[in-house]
Amino acid sequence: MNAINRLLQPRSVAVIGASADPSKTAGRPVSYLSKHGFGGAIYPVNPKATEIGGLKCYPDIASLPETPDVGIVLLGAERAHVAVRELAARGCAAAIVLASGYTETGEQGARRQQQLVEAAGAMRILGPNTIGLVNLTDNIVLSASGALEMDHFPAGSIGVVSQSGGILGSLLSRAAARGIGLSKLVSTSNEVDLELADFIDALVDDEATKVIALYVEAVRHPEKFRAAALRAARAGKPVVAFKIGRSEAGAKAAVSHTGALAGADRMYDALFRQAGVIRAQSFADLLDIPAALATGRKLRGRRVAILTSTGGAGTLVSDSLGVAGFDTPAPDADTAAALRALQDGDHAALDRNPIDVTLAGLQPELLRAAIKALLASPSYDALAIVVGASALAMPELMANAIRDCLPLSDKPVVAYVSPHAPEVQALLTQRGVPAFSAAESCTAAFAGMLQATQWKEPAPDAAAPAVDLADLPAGSLDEAQAKQLFARFGVPCARETVVQTPAEAERAARELGGRVVLKILSRDITHKSDVGGVAVNVTPDQIAARLASMADEVEGKARVRPTRFIVQEMVTGGTELILGMHRDPLGTAILLGMGGVTAELFKDTTLRMLPSQGGLGREEALSMAKELRTWPLLDGFRGCPKADVDALVDAIVAFSRMAAQLGDRLVEAEINPVFVLPQGRGVRAADGVVVLR
Amino acid sequence: MNAINRLLQPRSVAVIGASADPSKTAGRPVSYLSKHGFGGAIYPVNPKATEIGGLKCYPDIASLPETPDVGIVLLGAERAHVAVRELAARGCAAAIVLASGYTETGEQGARRQQQLVEAAGAMRILGPNTIGLVNLTDNIVLSASGALEMDHFPAGSIGVVSQSGGILGSLLSRAAARGIGLSKLVSTSNEVDLELADFIDALVDDEATKVIALYVEAVRHPEKFRAAALRAARAGKPVVAFKIGRSEAGAKAAVSHTGALAGADRMYDALFRQAGVIRAQSFADLLDIPAALATGRKLRGRRVAILTSTGGAGTLVSDSLGVAGFDTPAPDADTAAALRALQDGDHAALDRNPIDVTLAGLQPELLRAAIKALLASPSYDALAIVVGASALAMPELMANAIRDCLPLSDKPVVAYVSPHAPEVQALLTQRGVPAFSAAESCTAAFAGMLQATQWKEPAPDAAAPAVDLADLPAGSLDEAQAKQLFARFGVPCARETVVQTPAEAERAARELGGRVVLKILSRDITHKSDVGGVAVNVTPDQIAARLASMADEVEGKARVRPTRFIVQEMVTGGTELILGMHRDPLGTAILLGMGGVTAELFKDTTLRMLPSQGGLGREEALSMAKELRTWPLLDGFRGCPKADVDALVDAIVAFSRMAAQLGDRLVEAEINPVFVLPQGRGVRAADGVVVLR
Repeated sequence: MNAINRLLQPRSVAVIGASADPSKTAGRPVSYLSKHGFGGAIYPVNPKATEIGGLKCYPDIASLPETPDVGIVLLGAERAHVAVRELAARGCAAAIVLASGYTETGEQGARRQQQLVEAAGAMRILGPNTIGLVNLTDNIVLSASGALEMDHFPAGSIGVVSQSGGILGSLLSRAAARGIGLSKLVSTSNEVDLELADFIDALVDDEATKVIALYVEAVRHPEKFRAAALRAARAGKPVVAFKIGRSEAGAKAAVSHTGALAGADRMYDALFRQAGVIRAQSFADLLDIPAALATGRKLRGRRVAILTSTGGAGTLVSDSLGVAGFDTPAPDADTAAALRALQDGDHAALDRNPIDVTLAGLQPELLRAAIKALLASPSYDALAIVVGASALAMPELMANAIRDCLPLSDKPVVAYVSPHAPEVQALLTQRGVPAFSAAESCTAAFAGMLQATQWKEPAPDAAAPAVDLADLPAGSLDEAQAKQLFARFGVPCARETVVQTPAEAERAARELGGRVVLKILSRDITHKSDVGGVAVNVTPDQIAARLASMADEVEGKARVRPTRFIVQEMVTGGTELILGMHRDPLGTAILLGMGGVTAELFKDTTLRMLPSQGGLGREEALSMAKELRTWPLLDGFRGCPKADVDALVDAIVAFSRMAAQLGDRLVEAEINPVFVLPQGRGVRAADGVVVLR
Repeated sequence: MNAINRLLQPRSVAVIGASADPSKTAGRPVSYLSKHGFGGAIYPVNPKATEIGGLKCYPDIASLPETPDVGIVLLGAERAHVAVRELAARGCAAAIVLASGYTETGEQGARRQQQLVEAAGAMRILGPNTIGLVNLTDNIVLSASGALEMDHFPAGSIGVVSQSGGILGSLLSRAAARGIGLSKLVSTSNEVDLELADFIDALVDDEATKVIALYVEAVRHPEKFRAAALRAARAGKPVVAFKIGRSEAGAKAAVSHTGALAGADRMYDALFRQAGVIRAQSFADLLDIPAALATGRKLRGRRVAILTSTGGAGTLVSDSLGVAGFDTPAPDADTAAALRALQDGDHAALDRNPIDVTLAGLQPELLRAAIKALLASPSYDALAIVVGASALAMPELMANAIRDCLPLSDKPVVAYVSPHAPEVQALLTQRGVPAFSAAESCTAAFAGMLQATQWKEPAPDAAAPAVDLADLPAGSLDEAQAKQLFARFGVPCARETVVQTPAEAERAARELGGRVVLKILSRDITHKSDVGGVAVNVTPDQIAARLASMADEVEGKARVRPTRFIVQEMVTGGTELILGMHRDPLGTAILLGMGGVTAELFKDTTLRMLPSQGGLGREEALSMAKELRTWPLLDGFRGCPKADVDALVDAIVAFSRMAAQLGDRLVEAEINPVFVLPQGRGVRAADGVVVLR
């Protein structure tokens, strides 16, 4: 067993700084270990006590009768490293350090944290500032979380890793109340050593775990995280993550809380998406989606049957599903006939969806038959059952009726419980029917399941020969150099000539033919238009004079007379896009956005993280374009010609290869605009910025 | 007392079709009336029983010893009207009809419903298809809802009106579990007579009610609804509405459920907004927002202090508030000093927001002092207290500590409860601190409170003289006529001349000066561009030839040779908008939207319902423009000149007056595009459609 496995399944645990008072935080771990049935050896360590909770207490680590697998260190930050050093010296696999007062509190804390790392040496550390971990599969509680005052919590197949200790307790108590079974819970907190990715890896290998839920404040090592998440996805164990910091306020709070530098929230969207991680949009979703995934049932489409005994609540579910793009079609003829056969009298409400059995009354037999008919129907991919007040009188009968039907199909079945009835919710969930008290939760559960089914690992970029960049200068490239760099990687650029005199400009314009664009060429002036340094639609006859007047205007505004100019072909009839990169603590991303003022107001952009090797694959590049809200502009909206999307995809891949090959040398790069011309006519980079180091 | 008050507070109730079996639906009303302590007379009516629940049972309505205030009719749809007729004949104030099988089931049901109306005569009807009503203020239960099996529910100040009976039960049981006190609950359902607006009116006059919560499937009489909602807003009783049907699926389900025709969901947004109704975005918000409003506390700004004993959960609240545009600033110097004075040791976590008292431990004294400091701080408009697992050990102490501070300020105080602890939530709520188990609920509560504080009744349009329309033809107007109509109401239109020959066109173009637009003028061809019927940027020299070629092209495509044309000035340098109207079962709305292909993809439009008298006020018109996501394009975005917003507002008001004066005669009207020119240069309607009847 490696150290992480010994940490999750220790045979012996030392509790350093254990208190004999179980109401104190330092008294909890020994008390909880015993109470929740730990089968191994427990060694309380405290020089001031001889016995704690009926167990022999040891004065120090040196006097322990054996080397414990795990040491729980309950001492404060000023002394914890001493215990850690001693545990490491004895060959302990891992220490759990609960103390706070490390990087999250500032510089002095950061120094303490470094001290802790040095003290641990080869021994693994969970924490500091952690609340510990709980292995529900094996009844091993290595935690001081107050949530463990509970006598019982259902074991199950959802593994939870949280960067906050308080949130671990919250998830544990909420899951227990809902009848949602967990396998392991780990609070990684300051992550001085063991981090999210380590436990994702461990949970992929953990037989009891089928789904992994993450509470994320900041991913410290994105590549490691991505590798672990991809491993989980390949193993068919969906990872669901709720990440804090969607707002600036939240990001700031998360940083204060953990001392970690988070990247932009949208970068996480890209990271998660590419690594097959399902992002929970609300904290509630972080239990709701895993609860649905833990059933192992498969959602293959968007068509949901809603079976209800109470009209209003059925409408709630239907409306919420509709808002999220799910379909709730009426039963097909065969299914409708099967439903009609179930009862006498007025059948109207059975021919619709929600399928309302109010009139028929709620009998388990009817329920069973209706569920069977709906699960068998080729018109539906899933079933949502609405539980009304009338079902509360016979929860067992009803729950069993539903459970009996589950083996008939692997389509997802969830329940919405309309009245306040937490015990019914828990009962249904434990019977294999995840039950929710919000219609939005049903929708989030289905959306998460669909994402899990539909996810495909992004194909890597085809291997591309490296471009020779030996001659590349450092610093800001000028516009012409920038485009030459893009072109080397295969991004088609607008034809252009660099000129210095009016005569050269005229000659260049005549060679290009027709109207041209005239721009100043300068490494220093980035916003050319602002200083009058751009003229469009210039004829060869006008250009000489225009060059002179432009030089005057720019000199007046920018206090420097431009000496070089670009004469560029006028690109017309295309759609303006922006192709760029974004880099922050999470990594480097390729950005695609719609150009133009109106689109800019809507921030219509999308990101993909650059893989560790090479550029983006073509499919991934295409998915970026399709993700833009203005994608229809490229796809023949309102009779516009379809754009050359193939060429755009090539350009995105080429740009991403450039970013990959240049790596950290590339400080900034953007093509703005790149014109996408009608099908067959390609794309043209018309302006760009590159800064190298 | 009027009939509705007698219905809400009857002194005597007859229960027609009462069953002696309290487990049957028909047995519940008598059982619930007794159980929940009704003080008046209860008259069960059933020819087959002599006594029900210890009460004398009457064979028929005629034999009742007095005229009851209210009759609860439990008979099926085929017999209910007979009982209704007899109750009306005896002079009963109102009947509650529970039977289903009316308009919601189709034609036969609609006939039955008509029969019911005729049977009632002057007597008021609640229902049919209703679950009845509950008056919690006076312990009067006139309902068969299974939710009333509960022994106790807290009375309070939230009045609920629901168009679904099942939802009424759901709200009743959820509110009780949360410690949220209700005053009256009414299920109006099919609304054959009494409807939402009647009960809004009654609740405005009800002393016990401070906040009104509505579950809406379809507003049947928008004017009545608006009047009642405005009356509530003026009385300082906020109305919160959750409306189903945000998606097509939901709208369809709601229609099947109630048989009512709903208008477009966006029309409801406009109706609610203009009537001061706060729209709950989720069903959960329909309790969360009223729970916060019921405290009577006032939110005057967006700055929220978060006091937490558990870091992770504080971050959750902070992030959710940030996403919704609330601020969570760090404490000002004085407040920070006051907080630091509360404890020894490391103060770092008190200088931030969330203000983390984890380190200080959670003592009621500390909590009280911190709350006092935060409520007194001029930096905060509200306080959110995060309750962690550590507080669960002493909920009373903690709840009382918070309650003690409430009288010091009227700023809102809410709580987020991080672990599963429904009893703590209920306790806090009953102590005056609305407590939520989702961070999003805290945010929704604050957002609702802010909306309530900030709402101002829209000023009506200044009285405008009627425009003489005696000469107006019926049917589709041609483009020139449409613009003439707009102009009569004061909308400036592009200068233009109607011509028939190339020579006339040339003369017109020379008179207009410069380049012009040439368009065919036809009542039949609506999409002129599609048939080649529009040319822009035409010079006077070109226009004669262009007219001829246009006539050929249109003839080729539309199989009819155009004989009339418009020569119009080229309007340049403006921003393109769409000004139109939308009419559906909810009424007539004025629509403003950004023009152009890109904006169209984002559906950047906004609506205002036309008031019952006159057009829209100027302020309302301005708020429409500011609501557009592309408003910055009019407001000097990226160095563009500011647009003539005053002139745009004038045009919106003028267009709305036209719609108001024409009323039902106006079938369709749209100006598309209207160009808004730079400040001081006005607007120009460049094309338009009008269809009259």
